[in-house]
Amino acid sequence: MAEKSVYRASTTAPVNIAIIKYWGKRDLALNLPTNSSLSVTLSQLSLRTLTTASSSAGYSGDSLTLNGKPQDIQSSKRTLACLSHLRSLRQALESVDSSLPKLSGLPLRIVSENNFPTAAGLASSAAGFAALVRAIADLYQLPQSPADLSRIARQGSGSACRSLMGGYVAWRAGSLSDGSDSIAEEVAPVSHWPEMRAIILVVSAEKKDVSSTEGMQTTVATSSLFPVRVQTVVPSRMDSMEAAIRNRDFSAFAEITMRDSNSFHATCLDSWPPIFYMNDISRAAVRLVHDINRASSKTVCAYTFDAGPNAVIYYLEESSELVVGTFKAILGEDINGWHGPFGDRLLSVTEGVALEKLDSRAISLLKQGVDRVILTGVGEGPVSVDSHLVGETGEILSEAAT
Amino acid sequence: MAEKSVYRASTTAPVNIAIIKYWGKRDLALNLPTNSSLSVTLSQLSLRTLTTASSSAGYSGDSLTLNGKPQDIQSSKRTLACLSHLRSLRQALESVDSSLPKLSGLPLRIVSENNFPTAAGLASSAAGFAALVRAIADLYQLPQSPADLSRIARQGSGSACRSLMGGYVAWRAGSLSDGSDSIAEEVAPVSHWPEMRAIILVVSAEKKDVSSTEGMQTTVATSSLFPVRVQTVVPSRMDSMEAAIRNRDFSAFAEITMRDSNSFHATCLDSWPPIFYMNDISRAAVRLVHDINRASSKTVCAYTFDAGPNAVIYYLEESSELVVGTFKAILGEDINGWHGPFGDRLLSVTEGVALEKLDSRAISLLKQGVDRVILTGVGEGPVSVDSHLVGETGEILSEAAT
Repeated sequence: MAEKSVYRASTTAPVNIAIIKYWGKRDLALNLPTNSSLSVTLSQLSLRTLTTASSSAGYSGDSLTLNGKPQDIQSSKRTLACLSHLRSLRQALESVDSSLPKLSGLPLRIVSENNFPTAAGLASSAAGFAALVRAIADLYQLPQSPADLSRIARQGSGSACRSLMGGYVAWRAGSLSDGSDSIAEEVAPVSHWPEMRAIILVVSAEKKDVSSTEGMQTTVATSSLFPVRVQTVVPSRMDSMEAAIRNRDFSAFAEITMRDSNSFHATCLDSWPPIFYMNDISRAAVRLVHDINRASSKTVCAYTFDAGPNAVIYYLEESSELVVGTFKAILGEDINGWHGPFGDRLLSVTEGVALEKLDSRAISLLKQGVDRVILTGVGEGPVSVDSHLVGETGEILSEAAT
Repeated sequence: MAEKSVYRASTTAPVNIAIIKYWGKRDLALNLPTNSSLSVTLSQLSLRTLTTASSSAGYSGDSLTLNGKPQDIQSSKRTLACLSHLRSLRQALESVDSSLPKLSGLPLRIVSENNFPTAAGLASSAAGFAALVRAIADLYQLPQSPADLSRIARQGSGSACRSLMGGYVAWRAGSLSDGSDSIAEEVAPVSHWPEMRAIILVVSAEKKDVSSTEGMQTTVATSSLFPVRVQTVVPSRMDSMEAAIRNRDFSAFAEITMRDSNSFHATCLDSWPPIFYMNDISRAAVRLVHDINRASSKTVCAYTFDAGPNAVIYYLEESSELVVGTFKAILGEDINGWHGPFGDRLLSVTEGVALEKLDSRAISLLKQGVDRVILTGVGEGPVSVDSHLVGETGEILSEAAT
């Protein structure tokens, strides 16, 4: 029996961290949001998903392997929706060009690995679905633009649509009921404001009480403060944030980022039953960011929290001394994360704000509760790569072996 | 030189804990609130302020002694406003009845003691100003009703107006700019629903970061979610809460109480900079209350938090086993507060919800973070007493000596 051909394409995709938060779906099946959102795509030097999509008549059925573990693809409606959408686009190509191999009819083998621990509580689903969609689109040689593909990735995980582009990315909520206008859009490329940096304080977390999907539904259904966030607060913040990015105005960027994070967590607290993602360590980080800004007599850093206790703190390259220097002085040299990408250039950073100017209780909480840091910055969208996680004969490889 | 007469009157006044929260002033000088609020007056067997007001030509000037410490009365605009208002009412009486001693012209000596540690972070200013106003009104033999006096006490401390009455008390925000319609009103007397109980979990607190007065101003000025709370959420909850009290519907009472506490803290978090009063221990109490209700298959308890981390948990006498029994099992017999008023009848309470049905992390946090409990229940308004903190010749006495 002749060996069956194995078609492959691989991509990496980035994590993104919202500065105007996505929270609330107006359509559960299509993952349509109640409001627009905006994020910074983070550098893949620090955090990324590597995904290989492959097709072969020799495969026995669609499969997905994530960090070495086979996933139950048939029970994931969201994954199936993405695959089916991508297959139909390939089929359209094949139907007008009979010279193309009929990949749309072949089983898919998808293999994906994150370069960061899933346990760290970092939103890996955004990078994961962005990589999955991008890799299959490449395998199928689809002509669709990143914005078109964002419509598909959105159905996998809402925020995944923002990981299909680099730099500063908006997800327009849209208003059509089929979701065709609910897509990602680049607000500004990396090159417009390349100095944006972030330090992630990874907080030792208990298992999350309430998943994002469940939490959103609860907030939409029960919070009496939520409608004003959706109708008034976020639309106005989207405009101000786009202006802040356009003008490279870090002070405005920072205030809107922090206020929007607080607003999102306020609507969680106002849900019934209430939802808490921030804990005392998170609040210590909030306190220290305000203290560092006060001590610096200008806004040099801004916190934001997703559906978990980790603090993501944005700052500009020029404020590395003040921001990273201070957190290094608090957390100590020995903590995991000062080395590696974005670490080299910060190794010499040792002086921040004098610790006497900061809340001592917050310092002590942070020391106790932060396990590791991740240094990163604004970065590019998905990148095609030659490191495949599926071998030439279809075997699954681990990243270490590629 | 003839000994000068000393006129005296003493009263005790209760603490009240709001179930619809007062947060936000529309007029700072007059202490006029942005929204109506509603509270349960707590039994003076557990918590109360004892205040003696006295007048004598032999005194050298107005003075106030609180828990043995002389206060700087001249720097407290709020106290001066109350004294001046009460004096003018006395003067009106004296002007129509010349047989009355001219007390309005005499210096006042006011001595006040709480029967609970100020450090416990319990709202003592409400009981304090209610007792001050009631004691002076008694000294002056003023004919004004508690509602009339509530208008004066409100100027001392907003929530004090609700401590001039027992049972279930509303503070109507009013709409007049002179505040004359911003007064307290009894929604229902103790006798209407005497079974209401509360356990206060006193959480080891750091010094409060932001005072209530400052916090309120920040929220009013900066929170974009706050206006909807004031305009829509609270008015509708006031109606539902009054109905719940009228119908003695604990399940409705509990849900509104918890949701309103969460809503208030959500607007604090949405303030700029954000304000946090609840901590991880507070959140553990929230979690356990929800768990106890779930395990009981009915709503048997309800949390509420003021501007601090202490949890006040309301329950009905009939649910003592489930509620107090559970907290006793968690916190242990040895913690301060199981004995004394409301403790005697609960000494035999030992069985609550099985601890396996509750979140183990929340149990462990509560054990670590709760210093003492206070057992109490709905109670009466201020009571005239014969235990004076000022002797017959004007000397200051301590309560232990009376």
